[in-house]
Amino acid sequence: MPVFVDFSNSSRDLRVLPSFATPLPRLTPQFEAEGSEEKYEVVIAGAGPAGLFLEVLLARYGLSDTSLLCIDSKPTALKSGQADGLQPRTLEVLKSLGLAEEILTEGCQMWEVAFWNPKQAVNSHTTGDVQGIERTSIVPDVAVAARFPHEVTIHQGRIERILEDDLRRYSPRGVQRSSRLTKVSIDEAGDSEFPVVAEIESPTGLRTVRTKHLVGADGAHSLVRRSMDLKLHGETSDFIWGVVDLIVDTDFPDIRRRCAIHSARGSVMVIPRERIATGEYLTRLYVHVQEEVKPDSDTAAEEGVEGVKKSEGKARREKITMESILAQAQEVLKPYYIKPRRPDAVDWWAAYQIGQRVSEHFVKQDSKGVNRVFIVGDACHTHSPKAGQGMNVSMMDSYNLSWKLIHSLHGLTPAHKSGDKILDTFETERQTIAQELIAFDKEFSSMFSGKIGAGDDQESLTHEQFLEVFSTGNGFTSGCGIEYPENLLVEKSGYEGVVHGTDYLSGVLRPGRRLLNVRVKRHADGVRRDLQDDFPSTGRFRILAFTSTDLLTTSGISATSINQISTILSQFPASIIELVILHPLESNTFVWTEIPEAVKTHSEMRFYNGTELEDAYKVYGVDPKKGAVAVVRPDGYIGTIAELKDTERIGEFLKRCLRTL
Amino acid sequence: MPVFVDFSNSSRDLRVLPSFATPLPRLTPQFEAEGSEEKYEVVIAGAGPAGLFLEVLLARYGLSDTSLLCIDSKPTALKSGQADGLQPRTLEVLKSLGLAEEILTEGCQMWEVAFWNPKQAVNSHTTGDVQGIERTSIVPDVAVAARFPHEVTIHQGRIERILEDDLRRYSPRGVQRSSRLTKVSIDEAGDSEFPVVAEIESPTGLRTVRTKHLVGADGAHSLVRRSMDLKLHGETSDFIWGVVDLIVDTDFPDIRRRCAIHSARGSVMVIPRERIATGEYLTRLYVHVQEEVKPDSDTAAEEGVEGVKKSEGKARREKITMESILAQAQEVLKPYYIKPRRPDAVDWWAAYQIGQRVSEHFVKQDSKGVNRVFIVGDACHTHSPKAGQGMNVSMMDSYNLSWKLIHSLHGLTPAHKSGDKILDTFETERQTIAQELIAFDKEFSSMFSGKIGAGDDQESLTHEQFLEVFSTGNGFTSGCGIEYPENLLVEKSGYEGVVHGTDYLSGVLRPGRRLLNVRVKRHADGVRRDLQDDFPSTGRFRILAFTSTDLLTTSGISATSINQISTILSQFPASIIELVILHPLESNTFVWTEIPEAVKTHSEMRFYNGTELEDAYKVYGVDPKKGAVAVVRPDGYIGTIAELKDTERIGEFLKRCLRTL
Repeated sequence: MPVFVDFSNSSRDLRVLPSFATPLPRLTPQFEAEGSEEKYEVVIAGAGPAGLFLEVLLARYGLSDTSLLCIDSKPTALKSGQADGLQPRTLEVLKSLGLAEEILTEGCQMWEVAFWNPKQAVNSHTTGDVQGIERTSIVPDVAVAARFPHEVTIHQGRIERILEDDLRRYSPRGVQRSSRLTKVSIDEAGDSEFPVVAEIESPTGLRTVRTKHLVGADGAHSLVRRSMDLKLHGETSDFIWGVVDLIVDTDFPDIRRRCAIHSARGSVMVIPRERIATGEYLTRLYVHVQEEVKPDSDTAAEEGVEGVKKSEGKARREKITMESILAQAQEVLKPYYIKPRRPDAVDWWAAYQIGQRVSEHFVKQDSKGVNRVFIVGDACHTHSPKAGQGMNVSMMDSYNLSWKLIHSLHGLTPAHKSGDKILDTFETERQTIAQELIAFDKEFSSMFSGKIGAGDDQESLTHEQFLEVFSTGNGFTSGCGIEYPENLLVEKSGYEGVVHGTDYLSGVLRPGRRLLNVRVKRHADGVRRDLQDDFPSTGRFRILAFTSTDLLTTSGISATSINQISTILSQFPASIIELVILHPLESNTFVWTEIPEAVKTHSEMRFYNGTELEDAYKVYGVDPKKGAVAVVRPDGYIGTIAELKDTERIGEFLKRCLRTL
Repeated sequence: MPVFVDFSNSSRDLRVLPSFATPLPRLTPQFEAEGSEEKYEVVIAGAGPAGLFLEVLLARYGLSDTSLLCIDSKPTALKSGQADGLQPRTLEVLKSLGLAEEILTEGCQMWEVAFWNPKQAVNSHTTGDVQGIERTSIVPDVAVAARFPHEVTIHQGRIERILEDDLRRYSPRGVQRSSRLTKVSIDEAGDSEFPVVAEIESPTGLRTVRTKHLVGADGAHSLVRRSMDLKLHGETSDFIWGVVDLIVDTDFPDIRRRCAIHSARGSVMVIPRERIATGEYLTRLYVHVQEEVKPDSDTAAEEGVEGVKKSEGKARREKITMESILAQAQEVLKPYYIKPRRPDAVDWWAAYQIGQRVSEHFVKQDSKGVNRVFIVGDACHTHSPKAGQGMNVSMMDSYNLSWKLIHSLHGLTPAHKSGDKILDTFETERQTIAQELIAFDKEFSSMFSGKIGAGDDQESLTHEQFLEVFSTGNGFTSGCGIEYPENLLVEKSGYEGVVHGTDYLSGVLRPGRRLLNVRVKRHADGVRRDLQDDFPSTGRFRILAFTSTDLLTTSGISATSINQISTILSQFPASIIELVILHPLESNTFVWTEIPEAVKTHSEMRFYNGTELEDAYKVYGVDPKKGAVAVVRPDGYIGTIAELKDTERIGEFLKRCLRTL
């Protein structure tokens, strides 16, 4: 356009940069390390997915490099195989951080699972004479409601790289590598505010740091767990599996689907993987190696790592080779052929023994009952990789811990001196999930290692039995059916009659479960939005108000409730509670002056027609005539639910979670 | 998992990096600058959206910093106002480059337009006694089929930053700033291979570079256009508008919707803008300033920039101030109030005069008819910003030019010595669009500057007339209804009866128009995909085959056609044509061995059920019983369409576009 007057305001430099997460307000004094000792508020040991994710979250919430240190013994980020699966719930969480795009577009989306079983003989006279395999069925990989109704497989190293790229926007230091934790202890006598003492071996020598909290994200061998004397419980099975990542050449029809293959000769699981730089696609194979190992006693394998007695270890390791894994896969897939596309087409391989172990405690308190040392990820639970849970559960441990820790450090919790009641819920919630994980994994792995329809022996399973375990486990394995138990942050009773239905997996509101996504239309501008986008992971609590059909009535329940909520908001520090409002009205033509002023004041861009696109009221089980109100925690899980008029319950709940002014 | 054997292949480092676009093969010798002179294959003058986008595209296609130079006279990227609107089609193109995410999530999505007009007096006796404004209707902003059915507004500087971030992944040098083009000429005598001579004023002094091609993306004042003696045609109207970006305080109900407001006191256009770092939202206002200017003669304003005679310029500039623009906006919006939220809440403001001008030619050839110098963007067309077209049409000029230029330089065109026939189509195609743009803008701007329903005078428009222009223009303003004329790359006849219907805006296939997106389900893995994701902007041609219901018949038309297409593919350099295949069968349970082997060979991951999700056959107007085949150009536009069995037509068309082996 031909312009002839032009003026600009220089403060607009910020308009061009990528957006940053808004840090949480800090009500405690800003942290400054005093004295000659190296001191932090939080030290994280280990920068795998659990540790790195925790560092990213804490940095985004507002902890600077002065407060936060993350060390890792390895000199560089991971480049090899290991975990590769992301659950729908993990994808939702990554989306809430703006970190899902590359994973969704560049990862391999798994939408379907194919089940292959021993081929039934055509001639009924020859039952038992099984030859080859055949496809029994193809079912959706994710059978529950989810924003992303599929899993994604992608190299763990790439996820770490994505997390680290984001981290560096908030933390100039990033992960301090080649730095190994050698000793951890709690020494209150030395400094009761920074009682955790960590000895770190760095390239420059041995150093000692003090910290308020230390988080062990240091894997199955966890030094932190051992130093804090936290015991692992569980057992190791006698099943040995091989895993291999490669570019395959095969005529097997479902090589790009997740497959559970049971043949008379053994079992294989196919996990399609992402496209790589050459334009080719990776495939992961899990292969049941036909070799039996005696289970260790709990004592002998207390570290829960090798799962094999040292004396027999070497001999048995030598038996398993890449060739033996591939040969066994080929046996199971007959009559189809499968082989590496080229001699160098194998990316990574490993062998492992299935075991399920979980730590009795996830936290160590000091003498005053303050939660000082935490463990997350593999440090608290180890299990088989078969259900693709490891990286997800580990990252979700950190996700759960992160906001509780920052609320405590920033003085946002009611007992802001120690913040301990909030921090207590970390173990309550995540130990429950770890136990469920271990139980599911045990069942799933044993069934998977068994044979299906191969004969008349009693150990044989039917395909239907297997499918049953697969399907009922879907709520758990998708991450979308996780339900935290009753605790300070989850109020499971007292809202009877407010929510209708019990199909929580399809979205019916339930304290302890995450808020399902729905598509809604915004009042202010008609934009179609995903409701979960109003629940970003910025450490804030949200009140989600379902106004009722009387919204346009000046002194109706909806108006009264919104005004009362407005009063509640004013009792808490600014910006730590956000208000999201839905309405069930058919028309969108009403204007701001026809509804309570508080709607525009607090929620101009968070106020939606909740029935025009998807019917959010129906999905969530809320009666549009009566409405409802819920508190959604910073991690997207429902804390409490109340009648629309019962805002007192909402206020009381929030006062247990957050400090007031 | 407890691992006891672990092996990894170090080549997997690449697995963790972000993906890079696959460069095009180069059949001409690799370029190496010889002699003492500074030489390039392409020089781009100007790094606004048009120039920068061209550089990004060429760098991704494979031109290194040795071959490619982009200079800009400014010392830094744009930080001020200017363009802010992205059309649905531009969003599709950015998506095809993996560059849409930040724009979609951080920009302001405009889904709706509200029309406001003078309030009709309640009492019919007082017709003509108009007081204030009222909302006449709200309609969808984008009324045609599009992958993203909305526009996005976002700071032009941010788009440039996104483009530049991507550029730096391919070009270590990036844009060479503070470097001003001072002279351009064609000197074949001096060096016929590098005949374009450019003089550049850099911080280090004046230097001379030679290049095969030079592209002027140097804006409305274009030195390149003037140096090449390319004439602008058009006129300047007598309407003056002010534009202001600010954070508003208002009770106007539709401030977050795009609004066309006609009042008895004048016109205002509201453009909602993105959320900024403070959490506040920007608004752009276009305000018709009530002051008349005499139109210049074509001669007096040949440069087409100021649109105002120099003699009267100064006096008139002084009349327009930020205060006068805001005061006029306030007048029009009565009875609502509108003001900056704070004294410093105005980001940018400018005043401009509406004018429409277009260059007679977009290209200058040398004496041998080789297209040497091109102009793109504002250098070839200037118009009003009101329809949000500028940045879009400019970037699409570059998008059109980019792949033709690289095909020519890489020797992929049939006449690979000059590549000129392909390059000729740049002007043919983009001049047509520029003319349409100018014509639409003229009509739209005049109507917008007129009054609606304000009285009985003949100049007054009805709301219906205005809405009519708005709606019929939607195909153009969305960018989705663009249709290139018949030319070497667009074959508009000879496919009669293959495609049914003429509702091209809803997706019916049409040579010269872009392929609409549909959702399809992939055969290999059941993944739900957007078909446009198989048409990324990597410079490749694609054959899109709609197989028919006889696909499972060994010697059916589908099988025969796919086999013939396979033969065609083998005649061209590897990887420059990709094959995408749809099938109309209800069942997905058939396996690779039941269909032609060529399907898996060429299209294992590009073969879809075309009816299970959306009915692609219906959308595109293809009869599932007969099928069809089309060529899609590297820019996503249909080149030609043929009967499924008429693969000869496909082969012939491709031979006119690409060299054979």
